[in-house]
Amino acid sequence: MSSFFTLLRAAASAHRSQLCVGLDPDPEVIPGGAAGALKHCLQVVQETQDLVCCYKPNSAFWEQYGPEGMAALAELRTRIDGSLPLVYDAKRGDFDHTSAAYARAAFDVLGMDAITLNPYLGADSLKPFTERGERGCYVICRTSNPGAADLQHRDVEGQPLYRRVADLAQELNQAGNLGLVIGATAPSQIAEVRASSDLPFLIPGVGAQGGDLDASVRAAWNGEADSCLISASRGVIYADSPRRAARELRDRINHVLGRQ
Amino acid sequence: MSSFFTLLRAAASAHRSQLCVGLDPDPEVIPGGAAGALKHCLQVVQETQDLVCCYKPNSAFWEQYGPEGMAALAELRTRIDGSLPLVYDAKRGDFDHTSAAYARAAFDVLGMDAITLNPYLGADSLKPFTERGERGCYVICRTSNPGAADLQHRDVEGQPLYRRVADLAQELNQAGNLGLVIGATAPSQIAEVRASSDLPFLIPGVGAQGGDLDASVRAAWNGEADSCLISASRGVIYADSPRRAARELRDRINHVLGRQ
Repeated sequence: MSSFFTLLRAAASAHRSQLCVGLDPDPEVIPGGAAGALKHCLQVVQETQDLVCCYKPNSAFWEQYGPEGMAALAELRTRIDGSLPLVYDAKRGDFDHTSAAYARAAFDVLGMDAITLNPYLGADSLKPFTERGERGCYVICRTSNPGAADLQHRDVEGQPLYRRVADLAQELNQAGNLGLVIGATAPSQIAEVRASSDLPFLIPGVGAQGGDLDASVRAAWNGEADSCLISASRGVIYADSPRRAARELRDRINHVLGRQ
Repeated sequence: MSSFFTLLRAAASAHRSQLCVGLDPDPEVIPGGAAGALKHCLQVVQETQDLVCCYKPNSAFWEQYGPEGMAALAELRTRIDGSLPLVYDAKRGDFDHTSAAYARAAFDVLGMDAITLNPYLGADSLKPFTERGERGCYVICRTSNPGAADLQHRDVEGQPLYRRVADLAQELNQAGNLGLVIGATAPSQIAEVRASSDLPFLIPGVGAQGGDLDASVRAAWNGEADSCLISASRGVIYADSPRRAARELRDRINHVLGRQ
């Protein structure tokens, strides 16, 4: 199979798009349980698949439907064209055997192409994922919620903790399959990490969380097709027209990048 | 319903036991897929239920079986006596709406009594769990793997990061339903955190991970029935006699506590 980042770069290029759409079904908004969630998300995919470079389902929103939700998530992967990779936003990270079981669940059972990882347990908790070289691994670095300040911004030996996490991801990037998650609410921090890292960035927080799209794109972009992945969820999947919402975001990003 | 910590203290007292058994099925060891995993774990429960104060299934080991594994985990809860609480070792923690969905999945769909949480995203990522006052929340503080040193031991404004996490959990403990996870490989750090915190401690890492049982119990115990919960998994559930293995651990802990 092609590696996640190979697929991602090819889709970004083919669709002239740095946009990732989060597929996070909400039972308060979408009727019909897990089947309704799958149907809604597949409709969004049908409307947006030529406008994005990947999709990002967050595990929590599927887990809340119980076993049927997990079956729907696995089916979602099989029903989206294989040229469009899926990033499993699961923020996993545990002891070695346990992380290996999570990697099997994400990559082999659910068929996901990439995963987001929580670094708090350290390098050995990430390795069972990163060793799967054909899969992508995005390490949570600096998140877009207010609570990010509680630990991530703490000064660790002269620099904020999230900088140490960026260094840890760089050190683990033996197979060239690592990236970082940095929220769009922190463009100055995106620039700060970009100054010392060429890892691909996944940037959520545009839209509902009030992140600054233009500044985030300028801060993250380094000329590589995978350097800046902008993720939006509710603003697209619950829009009156998901297609129009996705197109506006894609075009806005391209405008900032000087692509006409 | 009774709160998690009420159930835990009652079971600890009734069974004279500080032992938690991890229910982490391994498909390489147990035949028969998810049904085999459920059957094996229920057999372990039948042999050990009068010797423990709770059980701790780790989500990864059930997720690796796919949707059937999650259905088996939900069934596990319904088939264990309600007086014995289950701690869902899932190490979750995400943005507000996402954490709320994880809380629904853990507490409402799977019926778990408590959960382990990863603090890296900060206080607002933990609140959707801690607000469910009748459920227990164990925040990962200092883990028992070698990688713990990568971030958790970093000096943050004069103290290691895990001390800051312990303070964060203390601040969030409005409803009296928080605890900390501290590995048995670090008895001196257990003592250090205990010196400034009366939160309940959940201590994994005894057995396969080489933690020091006696020193960990002495360091954690403060006289409260929930102050020191010792968790063992593989050493019990794959023992020739899970009952004998659980009894030996329970009795060893009681010996350290001076209980005859």
